[in-house]
Amino acid sequence: MISRRGFLGLVGALAATAVLGCSGKTVQQNATVTAHASLPKLPWPYKTLDPDHVADIAYESYMHHHCMYGVFNAVVTALGEEVGYPYTVFPTQIAIYGKGGVVGWATLCGALNGAAMATYLVLPEKQADQVINELYAWYQYEPLPNYVPKKPVKADLNPFPKSVANSPLCHVSVTNWCKKTGYKAFSAERAERCGRLTADVAKKLVELLNAVHEGSFTPKYSLDSRTQSCRGCHCKGSTLEDTRGKMACWTCHTKEGAIRIEDLKNHPKV
Amino acid sequence: MISRRGFLGLVGALAATAVLGCSGKTVQQNATVTAHASLPKLPWPYKTLDPDHVADIAYESYMHHHCMYGVFNAVVTALGEEVGYPYTVFPTQIAIYGKGGVVGWATLCGALNGAAMATYLVLPEKQADQVINELYAWYQYEPLPNYVPKKPVKADLNPFPKSVANSPLCHVSVTNWCKKTGYKAFSAERAERCGRLTADVAKKLVELLNAVHEGSFTPKYSLDSRTQSCRGCHCKGSTLEDTRGKMACWTCHTKEGAIRIEDLKNHPKV
Repeated sequence: MISRRGFLGLVGALAATAVLGCSGKTVQQNATVTAHASLPKLPWPYKTLDPDHVADIAYESYMHHHCMYGVFNAVVTALGEEVGYPYTVFPTQIAIYGKGGVVGWATLCGALNGAAMATYLVLPEKQADQVINELYAWYQYEPLPNYVPKKPVKADLNPFPKSVANSPLCHVSVTNWCKKTGYKAFSAERAERCGRLTADVAKKLVELLNAVHEGSFTPKYSLDSRTQSCRGCHCKGSTLEDTRGKMACWTCHTKEGAIRIEDLKNHPKV
Repeated sequence: MISRRGFLGLVGALAATAVLGCSGKTVQQNATVTAHASLPKLPWPYKTLDPDHVADIAYESYMHHHCMYGVFNAVVTALGEEVGYPYTVFPTQIAIYGKGGVVGWATLCGALNGAAMATYLVLPEKQADQVINELYAWYQYEPLPNYVPKKPVKADLNPFPKSVANSPLCHVSVTNWCKKTGYKAFSAERAERCGRLTADVAKKLVELLNAVHEGSFTPKYSLDSRTQSCRGCHCKGSTLEDTRGKMACWTCHTKEGAIRIEDLKNHPKV
């Protein structure tokens, strides 16, 4: 199966190359332009996917090239199976960069980075933003990971310990899990946790994309009331308007948050 | 100009479509696969670019689709001009999602997100990671923005006020600039600041990519000594090993950091 756009592009390419090919002349430059001009503009066609199948691909892909590639490659591979071109020719290795919150900087969770990128492949801007908002809020507040692989690769704990990230950031998400479980940030258990979480994010994303595709999408997660209260004075249209963002404020900016004032008081170096 | 890989792919496509076209049969499915199989694997060929030209494109692209698209589209467009295919067919609109730290979540600075993605288009993993490490460290510690557009779009301040982000995160970077300048987070001045910063990031990235291409790349920015000290107890191979990342720790985790303990004590709601 090919899309309408893909088919029209193909017709142009076929017509041009057939004529050129039959003429027997050297037509390299022209034909290149014509044959490659058919890659369609975004968004590309979507078909309902099996969330559990995509989760399996994401877990496996994580083990090859980490978190961002895990989610992105899973969605593109599954769409390659269902839709075919142009998903089959997209170089998904571009998404490897998001590993460890971008090459280990621990900024944005790579699974979430890959999910947002995949969303922009398949939805127009306004709908994509709604899906990403829903996914990121879910990630902040949901105990994860939930995914159980058929064959665990890095570590086999049963039950596998969960934590709530309280943030879309890799640093906060990983450290919260380490503090709760006692496992180290570079342990096999932590790698397993991120692999399963990658599968969870891919599955949730596909559930949301399926819902949009089928006309049944309704956002369930809003920002928590404390964060909304903060935004009332600090975000768009407020008195101060000195910040922007939707990350949970209290994760960092409170006495009981991840950056605990009491911890700092007793810390030897600050 | 086309690459060796692109040329070989083209030869296959031409051969197939020419034969199929001459036969006059319905060959839709076969020809699709053959004609589109030529998109090369990463990394794609690089040519030395003019950093100032890329900065101009980045500033203009920011004004169309924000920060991540600004950097990514600038690099891909410039390589499209110098190298041609496959840059000319890449759907750069995929990078719009990084706007405002991913659709306004204020996580990773979109300019940095787009820069990392562009780097993975043109360099193999190990070299790409070195360039991204250098770029992100530079961004953390450099007073920005430096870029001066020929025709300012959002606001024309002279001199344009700078700040040091102390972080690769959109939230911290924007709020630090707002606190220093007094401009609001959704003001035209802040949008202008992010547009100029997008041009700065694109220019710096191209300077680094050119250096790698010409064999003269040597990292100049290391993590600051306080952050390295923190990592000694908290990061890979340490006693605690309860975190990961390269973001400056003290930006958040100190008394004088962005999350000031004294501020919190006097804050009405925490």
